[in-house]
Amino acid sequence: MPVAVLGTGMVGRSIAGRLEDLGHEVVVGTRDPAATLARSEPDQPFSAWTADHPGVRLATFAEAAKAAAELVVLAGNGAGALDVLARAGEANLDGKIVVDVTNPLDFSAGVPPTLFVKDTDSLGERLQRAYPGARVVKTLNTMNATLMADPELLAGGDHSVFVSGDDATAKARVTELLQSFGHADVIDLGDITTARGAEMFVGFWLRLWGAAGTPMFNIKVVR
Amino acid sequence: MPVAVLGTGMVGRSIAGRLEDLGHEVVVGTRDPAATLARSEPDQPFSAWTADHPGVRLATFAEAAKAAAELVVLAGNGAGALDVLARAGEANLDGKIVVDVTNPLDFSAGVPPTLFVKDTDSLGERLQRAYPGARVVKTLNTMNATLMADPELLAGGDHSVFVSGDDATAKARVTELLQSFGHADVIDLGDITTARGAEMFVGFWLRLWGAAGTPMFNIKVVR
Repeated sequence: MPVAVLGTGMVGRSIAGRLEDLGHEVVVGTRDPAATLARSEPDQPFSAWTADHPGVRLATFAEAAKAAAELVVLAGNGAGALDVLARAGEANLDGKIVVDVTNPLDFSAGVPPTLFVKDTDSLGERLQRAYPGARVVKTLNTMNATLMADPELLAGGDHSVFVSGDDATAKARVTELLQSFGHADVIDLGDITTARGAEMFVGFWLRLWGAAGTPMFNIKVVR
Repeated sequence: MPVAVLGTGMVGRSIAGRLEDLGHEVVVGTRDPAATLARSEPDQPFSAWTADHPGVRLATFAEAAKAAAELVVLAGNGAGALDVLARAGEANLDGKIVVDVTNPLDFSAGVPPTLFVKDTDSLGERLQRAYPGARVVKTLNTMNATLMADPELLAGGDHSVFVSGDDATAKARVTELLQSFGHADVIDLGDITTARGAEMFVGFWLRLWGAAGTPMFNIKVVR
């Protein structure tokens, strides 16, 4: 039952590594696997990362999505999200759960970034509209990559994560996955339009990050 | 040392009542005091509320702002915020701390409301630009009116509130005020531009409200 993770950056690696630790078969998708392996990145080249993760296979976006039994995690940047799904291929996404962890960040005017879609629409909705056969669940975009995959690193996991989506079964399946990561408090916000809220939250998260001086924080909904 | 509260709705009443309980002299500002007292509102007419709060005086926006020694709480709706400050009068705001608890909600397309300013600007910044002599501190807009004034009603006050503003002394004074209300965790987000984050948060808050089914919740920043 392979899980596909589309994206080889910090978020993709973090989630893929966690899935591997939990015993899942993982296929990471990228545009051009040979180019990804040849690239030397400032922090850690993907080739070095993959050497530490022998259970993770690298493939094209299309191969990864096709291999996925049920779950396709979209872990790239928001600006490229539609392009990544186009490369993954509609047929390879049909009926599958697309776990959308992206944020619609626009860095064109510097930092902090703004959002290229917000308030009256969301990136989660755009993806769902573009791939009506996929079951999009927006989640995990409200925290940093390390905490997405390993929430127990902060306060033993006593903080909140959110799911938005139109398909209740898909949200239940993603909730199980999040719980397996260690997320103790998974809150169902409602249908995919509630991704507007979860995505606008990032405008707040960015200022909290500035105030905290570290991205290793999260919010807990107290009720 | 009177405190002015501009606004006679739920937020204004909640904050004015709390200030009275804490022993402050309170002047509530409204457009037309006689009209406000004559009005019969569906839940509770202001005249009935004010009978229970003999320490609270009703006056015009300008009289209230003029009477304020230091603190002017802007507690009306966001759409009217600039108009309320115009009626309060620039001279009556000069050098004073404007505690801006408004949200830029736009109900013109129904509910949930959208934001009429966001992401690249904020209502807090608009107010500060319009009244450069005032010291605007954005705060409390991230929770419901009851919790603003009495946070200990929820989890003994173990949740977070935020301040944004350009004047460090003003933020310190507002922080003291919030602590006197029972806010245990006051987080300084930074200058007034960080109000963009605090205001965009309301887009998320609205969906949390929908999921929670009650407005009596708040977030705690876990770090």
